[in-house]
Amino acid sequence: MKERKIILAEKDIPENWYNILANMPNKPMPPLNPATQEPIGPDALAPLFPMGLIKQEVSADKWIPIPEEVRDIYKMWRPSPLYRASNLEKMLDTPAKIYYKYEGVSPAGSHKPNTAVAQVYYNKQEGVKRITTETGAGQWGSALALACNFFDIECEVYMVRVSYEHKPYRKVMMNTWGAEVFPSPSDRTEAGRKILAQDPNSPGSLGIAISEAVERAAMDENTKYSLGSVLNHVLLHQTVIGQEALKQMEIAGDLPDIIVAPFGGGSNFAGISFPFLRLNFEEGKKIRAIASEPASCPKLTRGQFRYDFGDTIGMTPLLPMYTLGHNFVPAPIHAGGLRYHGAGVIVSQLLKDKLIEARAHNQIECFEAGILFAKTEAIIPAPEATHGIATALQEAQKCKEEGVSRTILIHLCGHGNFDMAAYDAYFAGELTEHELTEKEITDSLAELDTPVIE
Amino acid sequence: MKERKIILAEKDIPENWYNILANMPNKPMPPLNPATQEPIGPDALAPLFPMGLIKQEVSADKWIPIPEEVRDIYKMWRPSPLYRASNLEKMLDTPAKIYYKYEGVSPAGSHKPNTAVAQVYYNKQEGVKRITTETGAGQWGSALALACNFFDIECEVYMVRVSYEHKPYRKVMMNTWGAEVFPSPSDRTEAGRKILAQDPNSPGSLGIAISEAVERAAMDENTKYSLGSVLNHVLLHQTVIGQEALKQMEIAGDLPDIIVAPFGGGSNFAGISFPFLRLNFEEGKKIRAIASEPASCPKLTRGQFRYDFGDTIGMTPLLPMYTLGHNFVPAPIHAGGLRYHGAGVIVSQLLKDKLIEARAHNQIECFEAGILFAKTEAIIPAPEATHGIATALQEAQKCKEEGVSRTILIHLCGHGNFDMAAYDAYFAGELTEHELTEKEITDSLAELDTPVIE
Repeated sequence: MKERKIILAEKDIPENWYNILANMPNKPMPPLNPATQEPIGPDALAPLFPMGLIKQEVSADKWIPIPEEVRDIYKMWRPSPLYRASNLEKMLDTPAKIYYKYEGVSPAGSHKPNTAVAQVYYNKQEGVKRITTETGAGQWGSALALACNFFDIECEVYMVRVSYEHKPYRKVMMNTWGAEVFPSPSDRTEAGRKILAQDPNSPGSLGIAISEAVERAAMDENTKYSLGSVLNHVLLHQTVIGQEALKQMEIAGDLPDIIVAPFGGGSNFAGISFPFLRLNFEEGKKIRAIASEPASCPKLTRGQFRYDFGDTIGMTPLLPMYTLGHNFVPAPIHAGGLRYHGAGVIVSQLLKDKLIEARAHNQIECFEAGILFAKTEAIIPAPEATHGIATALQEAQKCKEEGVSRTILIHLCGHGNFDMAAYDAYFAGELTEHELTEKEITDSLAELDTPVIE
Repeated sequence: MKERKIILAEKDIPENWYNILANMPNKPMPPLNPATQEPIGPDALAPLFPMGLIKQEVSADKWIPIPEEVRDIYKMWRPSPLYRASNLEKMLDTPAKIYYKYEGVSPAGSHKPNTAVAQVYYNKQEGVKRITTETGAGQWGSALALACNFFDIECEVYMVRVSYEHKPYRKVMMNTWGAEVFPSPSDRTEAGRKILAQDPNSPGSLGIAISEAVERAAMDENTKYSLGSVLNHVLLHQTVIGQEALKQMEIAGDLPDIIVAPFGGGSNFAGISFPFLRLNFEEGKKIRAIASEPASCPKLTRGQFRYDFGDTIGMTPLLPMYTLGHNFVPAPIHAGGLRYHGAGVIVSQLLKDKLIEARAHNQIECFEAGILFAKTEAIIPAPEATHGIATALQEAQKCKEEGVSRTILIHLCGHGNFDMAAYDAYFAGELTEHELTEKEITDSLAELDTPVIE
């Protein structure tokens, strides 16, 4: 019998993060000050982030060393396994070869701790005592709670109130690792109190939770803020995934023709695909990387490339990104991690330059893909992860129709152990699709008064 | 930096299961027919189990080959990692060296699939079309659902109604793998209908669920029944864990002085410890194996060694076991997998012969141990798994007091992703302890009219 998975040794954990900025033919345009519309410098980020991370955010170095302390913590779950999906291939009766890189082995159950640990490390280096963040369904919050626990830093998580009340288990996970979790809006911030004064029963939103976390960080010099995706340094940290996968594919004697990954803000997709795109830049390979997004939040496939705010409330610098408008409110799909209005600037520029692709899937199609995956490969995927699987199934079908074998690599970014309510809704026939009209998108974009990029 | 974990290759998955019966100085006494009190033969089990498993149940062979198809499925998550708990050691400031073998990497999140896959394989070999079982909190049911899915056998799970209603996520997991899950008592069996006629709102019990699953299996020759612990063949299948751990400890250049594992029916404990006890029998080693049980269900530390029924209702043969009496109803602690009145016959005989040890812990102590573990080693343990950790903490403390270094191996049998409600109850201060009185135990045992063993 053949091997099902390729396992690396701890010494194979990458020693550097890969910075794709160094290889990009067109660098992203600069962030702008919303008031002046002038480019801003890195110092504008200093109230919120430690300098170690700000330097990474703007670095043009191709390789950035991973500190030994970070690598040592990575060893608790890394290297993660690369599986050959032989049962799935057989079920699909496809000539395609399908592999998946599985990040659900981390204690928080997703790829998120890869950046959480790195971010907390740099905060610790600069004497930060407390880190704040927001979380929706709780995947990012639990990764940060885990990381803060390792470095003995206080972790303060603002969790959207409706999630706090309906999805208590992620909160308990954060508590177990020592984090404080507050339903947002809370009475701990001016932003929260203002909302509560208007509506004491406000269900909260990611936008409000961001405001609370940022306000707490800005008011105290020993407190910083942390973000789980979108920013360059977050994408950078996730490249350990793709670097390991590249080594594992080499051991398998194979190289992907197509890489598929779910797309929220970009760190999941970047993590697996950037180290392979390097081969396109440097060795003339033609590996296709496809970002899989929900049809209900299709910034890459139906959004506009322009300047927009990174947050809902308009506190961040203006960023050059594919966006649906920062006021866009996606339908309440179960893949909560993909409900973000914009795409990080690096991924946006790559898409603009046609160096990557994007595809949208509706959520029923995604759950069907997820259940097929669970029934063949045993792992029940997180709702976010089912999006990449849905794209892979389409590509495998194409191989079958064309009678061509291609190698497909899926980023299976996390397990669905905390998402069984979503699967339950699928089985109960309660999942709905919101067919997003063109008018809804143009209306949302029409509200923007930020610079368009021609 | 040193390695944190020892990983084996797929080729290192054991090729045989280890049968400790071959090495035991005193074999277990025979099971008895409750009506005649005469020893029964293996054919008495034929209505419920396939012959392949019955042969294993009574085999005296030391090594029993693992079929290639079973090994191939094991490769989906095996070999499981062995970790050095260096963070925990540091926190405890103990000279003890602590390792843990982690079975939470299986798709169902515990060690249970090791036997589920083997059991379903032998059923498939004999043309069985459907397997029934009972489940409480759902850990065993989901392992069997997973295994039946691999072999395309129907899986019918009777889940205690109160769990079915309060813990829906394990049920959804079973559904995702294609199993049918029925709240028990159900109207699908005579046993269930009888209970429902008396009390339409019956919350159910494990005893009733067993009756339903057994009745369904007995009424149809294509349907068999499956059990997740207690029986000899179940213990046998779990020995892949200890065999791997032995190889991993050798790579670490170490050998445990003490092995600790949670104790429910015995398969968890047997799985990790029996391959090491073989070294005691064959090479004169003095490895101590400690079974960690809940203080609220202390059959090993406070029970009686005598003949008793394996089930609550009294349908099984009489088994020579440590028991609290088959009518004993333990307090509703969160470690649902450990709430069983008796111990499997092999483990009972080993304890009787003082070849293993046992220790009881109350549940608050266990959750405290589990949270300390999560804060140091990152993995949040299942409530069952916290019992072994609690024993390990005591032994590590002893090492510290005596200034002696001993090597402790913990069986971390599963993660707590589906048990966060239990942790929530701990944090909320809602956990209680039931101090079991001597009278409660003697009263329960006094109800028995089965043969005492002097």
